[in-house]
Amino acid sequence: MCRWLAYSGAPVLLDTILYKPEHSLIDQSLHARMGVETTNGDGFGVGWYGPHMETPAVVREIGPAWSDRNLREIAAHVRSSLFFAHIRASTGSAVQQTNCHPFRHGRWMWMHNGAIDEFHLSRRELALAVDPSLYPYIEGSTDSEMMFFLALTLGLEDDPPGAVARMVGMIERTGHDHGVEYPLQMTVAVTDGRRLWAFRYSSQGASRSLYYSTRVETLRALHPDLAFLRNMSEDARLIVSEPLGGLPGAWNKVPESSYGVVQPGEDALLPFVPQPA
Amino acid sequence: MCRWLAYSGAPVLLDTILYKPEHSLIDQSLHARMGVETTNGDGFGVGWYGPHMETPAVVREIGPAWSDRNLREIAAHVRSSLFFAHIRASTGSAVQQTNCHPFRHGRWMWMHNGAIDEFHLSRRELALAVDPSLYPYIEGSTDSEMMFFLALTLGLEDDPPGAVARMVGMIERTGHDHGVEYPLQMTVAVTDGRRLWAFRYSSQGASRSLYYSTRVETLRALHPDLAFLRNMSEDARLIVSEPLGGLPGAWNKVPESSYGVVQPGEDALLPFVPQPA
Amino acid sequence: MCRWLAYSGAPVLLDTILYKPEHSLIDQSLHARMGVETTNGDGFGVGWYGPHMETPAVVREIGPAWSDRNLREIAAHVRSSLFFAHIRASTGSAVQQTNCHPFRHGRWMWMHNGAIDEFHLSRRELALAVDPSLYPYIEGSTDSEMMFFLALTLGLEDDPPGAVARMVGMIERTGHDHGVEYPLQMTVAVTDGRRLWAFRYSSQGASRSLYYSTRVETLRALHPDLAFLRNMSEDARLIVSEPLGGLPGAWNKVPESSYGVVQPGEDALLPFVPQPA
Amino acid sequence: MCRWLAYSGAPVLLDTILYKPEHSLIDQSLHARMGVETTNGDGFGVGWYGPHMETPAVVREIGPAWSDRNLREIAAHVRSSLFFAHIRASTGSAVQQTNCHPFRHGRWMWMHNGAIDEFHLSRRELALAVDPSLYPYIEGSTDSEMMFFLALTLGLEDDPPGAVARMVGMIERTGHDHGVEYPLQMTVAVTDGRRLWAFRYSSQGASRSLYYSTRVETLRALHPDLAFLRNMSEDARLIVSEPLGGLPGAWNKVPESSYGVVQPGEDALLPFVPQPA
Repeated sequence: MCRWLAYSGAPVLLDTILYKPEHSLIDQSLHARMGVETTNGDGFGVGWYGPHMETPAVVREIGPAWSDRNLREIAAHVRSSLFFAHIRASTGSAVQQTNCHPFRHGRWMWMHNGAIDEFHLSRRELALAVDPSLYPYIEGSTDSEMMFFLALTLGLEDDPPGAVARMVGMIERTGHDHGVEYPLQMTVAVTDGRRLWAFRYSSQGASRSLYYSTRVETLRALHPDLAFLRNMSEDARLIVSEPLGGLPGAWNKVPESSYGVVQPGEDALLPFVPQPA
Repeated sequence: MCRWLAYSGAPVLLDTILYKPEHSLIDQSLHARMGVETTNGDGFGVGWYGPHMETPAVVREIGPAWSDRNLREIAAHVRSSLFFAHIRASTGSAVQQTNCHPFRHGRWMWMHNGAIDEFHLSRRELALAVDPSLYPYIEGSTDSEMMFFLALTLGLEDDPPGAVARMVGMIERTGHDHGVEYPLQMTVAVTDGRRLWAFRYSSQGASRSLYYSTRVETLRALHPDLAFLRNMSEDARLIVSEPLGGLPGAWNKVPESSYGVVQPGEDALLPFVPQPA
Repeated sequence: MCRWLAYSGAPVLLDTILYKPEHSLIDQSLHARMGVETTNGDGFGVGWYGPHMETPAVVREIGPAWSDRNLREIAAHVRSSLFFAHIRASTGSAVQQTNCHPFRHGRWMWMHNGAIDEFHLSRRELALAVDPSLYPYIEGSTDSEMMFFLALTLGLEDDPPGAVARMVGMIERTGHDHGVEYPLQMTVAVTDGRRLWAFRYSSQGASRSLYYSTRVETLRALHPDLAFLRNMSEDARLIVSEPLGGLPGAWNKVPESSYGVVQPGEDALLPFVPQPA
Repeated sequence: MCRWLAYSGAPVLLDTILYKPEHSLIDQSLHARMGVETTNGDGFGVGWYGPHMETPAVVREIGPAWSDRNLREIAAHVRSSLFFAHIRASTGSAVQQTNCHPFRHGRWMWMHNGAIDEFHLSRRELALAVDPSLYPYIEGSTDSEMMFFLALTLGLEDDPPGAVARMVGMIERTGHDHGVEYPLQMTVAVTDGRRLWAFRYSSQGASRSLYYSTRVETLRALHPDLAFLRNMSEDARLIVSEPLGGLPGAWNKVPESSYGVVQPGEDALLPFVPQPA
């Protein structure tokens, strides 16, 4: 469907992560290995927090990432300590900027890989469940944006894991009401610019792939010669749809039905259980 | 806001109408005279019916019409006896194909100039009023597309003038509920490929300009030297946001709160009165 | 690199050929089997001759063909008895309309799969060899467009096979002067709207794939149930970078260093030998 | 034709200059007052130098600046002490990224407003005059990019004013050879990231408008309440096609046939005289 990555750590040029690794996200736009499709060419987006900026910059385009010169320029000149990047493979909804990830609301960013199964059946009901004060901010037509607005409605800004659990609960209930067996498939990343949460879940228990990077310290000891590691800080953490390279020891599967938190201090990896909304 | 034109008559190359007149729609994309903005550069669309085709072709793009080479190619090579063309000046909603006119549903096409005032206040309520079976077909975020789906919900395919009157009634009631004094401003064209209806109405009674062409026979007598008239059939009829040239006698204002029908046999011009939905 | 197809026969809706076959050109834009790359997502073009039109319409876009709604609209509504379609995989030159195929000059169209090896070394010299009266019409930066303008310079309009042979000769000589071992790799299609020539050649004698379709009559006998054949005329002929499906007996390799002519009367398949320019 | 601005001074968010002034460049994209056209909607570009970066980032797009969300994002999040911005009104050449300004070569940036008159007559000759080692870097089809590569050929990196004078001399001689009375119209900005040169010249002595800003110190004294001045450093200097507002005392015409240098220490304003190349 799609591929994404999230980075948190000391400020790096975006291209250190986006372009330079052997199997970078840009390479994945043409040659994804673990996705449903090898090609993710239906638009892309990158969102980054800069110094002294509460709100992230979000740049989204409808063409493929692999040939986009502006993305290359931005990546080669912008540094950030927390950024998201996403490449899209549409499952039918229009190829337009408002359907590209990451989505932003205030200082929050959201991106998704997966799908609400038979979204056309539940779209209207889910739209009604969005808080009326948030409703006018929906600009696109994707299930992913709807999930974001439902999570915002259900308390994302106060309790991200709880809000995502309730969002999933609502989508599953709505899907089941329409006779959909496995209503949801998702890996989701969300951040407020300070902490970063990543979720892996599917109704069927067969979720899209999701990996987090091993601690940089450990990796450097294992692989002192790897270029892109040299520019990374000790607290650097990557969460990715698929590994950026074949480096032994570098990547760890996020288990089924779990979520991780990347934050000042210790990171955490916890079970994820949908809740009734 | 926007500019549009609708043509019905013997088959002509689209560029006869779109490019060749002195103040053509393409010229209006840069130099509109009667609109709120002189520039209409936020996307465009053209929709045409071909021979043996129930459903129209609809080509929409997000760039300005004036520089679009593909539009020029299509216009120079496609003939049609019934087509719509629209150039957009966004009032804030995203510049994306799904927000470009004309909109299509089955064999129906719809285009609009104007706005639902304070659309963000009523958007959710209006979306809920759309028939659930039609709701999944909403792809964009404009008031114009919403008006189309409300009209479809309210019987457009059986009784176009009645459905549009009920759609307007619903929008006005919803707007008034939100304290909006003049909820709607519109000129609308709609067709099923056989007949063509054009509406001019605004809650304030100060509607966007709309003109219909004088009978070709009469015009030819007045102006035997005018190139674009020579290619037009006797039954050719144009409805336009603003005249395509300064030709004396060629253009007639559609009166406030009226609508016209272009159809086999006699055309008609009738009063338009919103109705409760 | 790229994939293309050329159709000649009774008028058909473009989508009969472009979309409906099992392994259509649109499918090849995501899943090419015989090309250097599986993805051909760096723009596309379609050019067609219509009735009473000397000059073909050429529509080109910079996004991928697979998601382009306008291409789908045009293909579903335009009929032609002679058309070209091309999907591009850039080898580095900019993704822009003027680099998309087919190229047009007057009533001639040209498309290419392959490359001038080390084009940056010979580009200036080749540009100088273009007739000064043609030079201002060069709009893009590809080797493919340069090949077209060289062929035009060398007599394409009077003697297509001879002009292409001289063009190849010139490119090989220039490449060799710069120490390039195998200067050219090409399959080329060219037409004036009446006849259609297709060339397969490479300096190395290991050319990109090229196929022509078996006579429709023969194919129908073999496969009476194949949908897209039913709409084809007896004189329908397709030339394609790779077969549009796995139909036994349907596709024939154009041999190395040969060219074919599709024309009123008997088609021909002849050897191709570069000539000094 | 086009509008541009160049900023040099303490680092500012780009939008301080690009969006916030009353008659900002973005406003000029729709409502230019001093240009040949009021609309400059045929693409835009922004190029900026960042800290620790020799080479500028250059982001260019083919749509209008006024509706471009990515430009707004970048402008609201990127700070620079030296940047160029340009909005384009094409005089016929293709609307594509490689025709958008600024152009870049190594650490040099170039942008232009104006035209080589009858460029099609001299384009080939001028292309031949470009140094063969630079020739392969020409990507677009504009006179503006050709001027840049001629200036590079004629010594831009060592002596910018001299190289520009020779470039103009060459264009005028070539034009005159083709019977063109007034071969060149230009305002040009060029920078290496340290110094900034701006030229105003035309063969006819009737050049496009060009202004430089009054010293910030002086302006602040005159207008203590002006928001966008508050964020500007003492050494901030703007050079613009037309004033960003009607502030009395803020803007000074660059005289006919002159050029300015913005540099560490004293800026300079000097006469410009074409030289034989």
